[in-house]
Amino acid sequence: MVDPANTVGIPVNPTPLLTDVLDIVIPTIRNLDFLEMWRPFLQPYHLIIVQDGDPSKTIAVPEGYDYELYNRNDINRILGPKASCISFKDSACRCFGYMVSKKKYIFTIDDDCFVAKDPLGKAVNALEQHIKNLLCPSTPLFFNTLYDPYREGADFVRGYPFSLREGVSTAVSHGLWLNIPDYDAPTQLVKPKERNTRYVDAVMTIPKGTLFPMCGMNLAFDRELIGPAMYFGLMGDGQPIGRYDDMWAGWCIKVICDHLGLGVKTGLPYIYHSKASNPFVNLRKEYKGIFWQEDIIPFFQNVKLSKEAVTVQQCYIELSKMVKEKLSAIDPYFDKLADAMVTWIEAWDELNPATKA
Amino acid sequence: MVDPANTVGIPVNPTPLLTDVLDIVIPTIRNLDFLEMWRPFLQPYHLIIVQDGDPSKTIAVPEGYDYELYNRNDINRILGPKASCISFKDSACRCFGYMVSKKKYIFTIDDDCFVAKDPLGKAVNALEQHIKNLLCPSTPLFFNTLYDPYREGADFVRGYPFSLREGVSTAVSHGLWLNIPDYDAPTQLVKPKERNTRYVDAVMTIPKGTLFPMCGMNLAFDRELIGPAMYFGLMGDGQPIGRYDDMWAGWCIKVICDHLGLGVKTGLPYIYHSKASNPFVNLRKEYKGIFWQEDIIPFFQNVKLSKEAVTVQQCYIELSKMVKEKLSAIDPYFDKLADAMVTWIEAWDELNPATKA
Repeated sequence: MVDPANTVGIPVNPTPLLTDVLDIVIPTIRNLDFLEMWRPFLQPYHLIIVQDGDPSKTIAVPEGYDYELYNRNDINRILGPKASCISFKDSACRCFGYMVSKKKYIFTIDDDCFVAKDPLGKAVNALEQHIKNLLCPSTPLFFNTLYDPYREGADFVRGYPFSLREGVSTAVSHGLWLNIPDYDAPTQLVKPKERNTRYVDAVMTIPKGTLFPMCGMNLAFDRELIGPAMYFGLMGDGQPIGRYDDMWAGWCIKVICDHLGLGVKTGLPYIYHSKASNPFVNLRKEYKGIFWQEDIIPFFQNVKLSKEAVTVQQCYIELSKMVKEKLSAIDPYFDKLADAMVTWIEAWDELNPATKA
Repeated sequence: MVDPANTVGIPVNPTPLLTDVLDIVIPTIRNLDFLEMWRPFLQPYHLIIVQDGDPSKTIAVPEGYDYELYNRNDINRILGPKASCISFKDSACRCFGYMVSKKKYIFTIDDDCFVAKDPLGKAVNALEQHIKNLLCPSTPLFFNTLYDPYREGADFVRGYPFSLREGVSTAVSHGLWLNIPDYDAPTQLVKPKERNTRYVDAVMTIPKGTLFPMCGMNLAFDRELIGPAMYFGLMGDGQPIGRYDDMWAGWCIKVICDHLGLGVKTGLPYIYHSKASNPFVNLRKEYKGIFWQEDIIPFFQNVKLSKEAVTVQQCYIELSKMVKEKLSAIDPYFDKLADAMVTWIEAWDELNPATKA
């Protein structure tokens, strides 16, 4: 029998699409052909494309997608002198898209990321999984051995304190990558042929007090909860490092989420990462970061934000002061970065004025 | 062509069997028929069977297994008055087996645990995976998003500090369960039909500073590194609670591992857990633990061991003093438990005298 209303196959709790409250941010220097493959999943959403490099170049976007596009001229025009906080010739420029968005949620994806398949061969709707992750709580205060307790078929195990089972709001959902893993240049050089083929069917909360390497390739977050801390730093043109933009953001958002009682999830969804970047170029971009981070990590592990810092902006400004005070000794770059962190918050607040109560 | 030496299929780095340095500890009240199914994997090992309940009952062990068996009379004879620290009529009695073992490694398993199958239908050699987990390092100081970086096909991701890539020694390997999940009585009552069918192909380190609910059903550890802290407390006959034996041990070993710079892994291997225990009986055993743990967890989260505590025994004695001081206010039971912790260490040292340098 035909079921014209198609009510039979609808699950009891379908994941909401959130098309009206979610923007997709894509940094790019080329035509966005990769969106063809994503059409079944991403076409209903609004795209914010941040064009890096030469602004006179035209970026082709597959037909049927609704988008706005910003090149360097646009960024300079919109932000004026504050445009100095937005990186150039580096995918760190994507954070400009977070700032101009007016939506509650952001999904950001790289243009060399394709649709992955799960072990049964089914195409993975990455965004749907990110939405699931963001809409259900996190559990940063105690570890659940059966992974995300809110997933279907899972729960809190024996011994998990009942008072902690409500969890906390999830601010960030960090997805993973099949095929080309996100390795640093030295590991790329040592293991040029390694491919990630292990599909781990899990989502988990990164515990409070634990830092992680956040990759910006396949990432979603709640802009209202954590947006102003999602600054990807100063990278690329005129800067001494690259490829630490997402790492920087990851360290900052994690200490702020821990302070504000918000959750960060990692695991599903996977995307298929198609192309390894050049390890020699990467090494040149990374090498300062590789030794600087030996001091940066202990710094972030010891960050204590004050009780007075109750908004993301307040936390971030406090953090910028600590960066200036504690990290400038490593290199003058951090002095500049600390200033850029303040500029970023000023620009954010200018584009996102507080709504009256 | 026949390959009589069977050299073709041998992997480059086979997991060592460790038959001479590993004991399997099984607490039981019944015949050990479940070992038939485990024969291909467990028969090469020595078993330490701790018979709970009526000592006059005879426990049948499948032929071909090498074992020693201790009933309550044996425990009383061997430990004398110190036998008071070993629980009776509760699987917590298993820790007596840890104490009488002279081996470096322990694998402990419940007698209702069967061989699980991986998603390809292959029988899981649980002990082999535990050995892998114990022989490779843990990474408690920073989170690796691709899970265990030491597994084949995996590594540390971009942004993982190089100075932390050596990891730390792994003291504990906590395995999981397919079919009947390890739920508390309230969850069992609410979800009587829930079965765990999700095979998560991952091993991970539980970060430093994070507590977890350790289940004793499928557990392996390095006795030399952490043995004296693997005390399963006072449960069962004459005690106000049950089913918190492994939880207690888990909280204690975690704070001590964190203090001593040792690692705790969880994830693979799975066993197939065949039979849900009675939720009504469980509720009677658990209910005090369910509200006590609301105070116990914050206590363990705030434990700070002194710099002077450099051996597991010293840490454990220090912890027992804190338990007496801080938890006795909850219930006089904790005063008794703190004393039993000291008795346990005395008994451990008696049976395991320090070898001369």
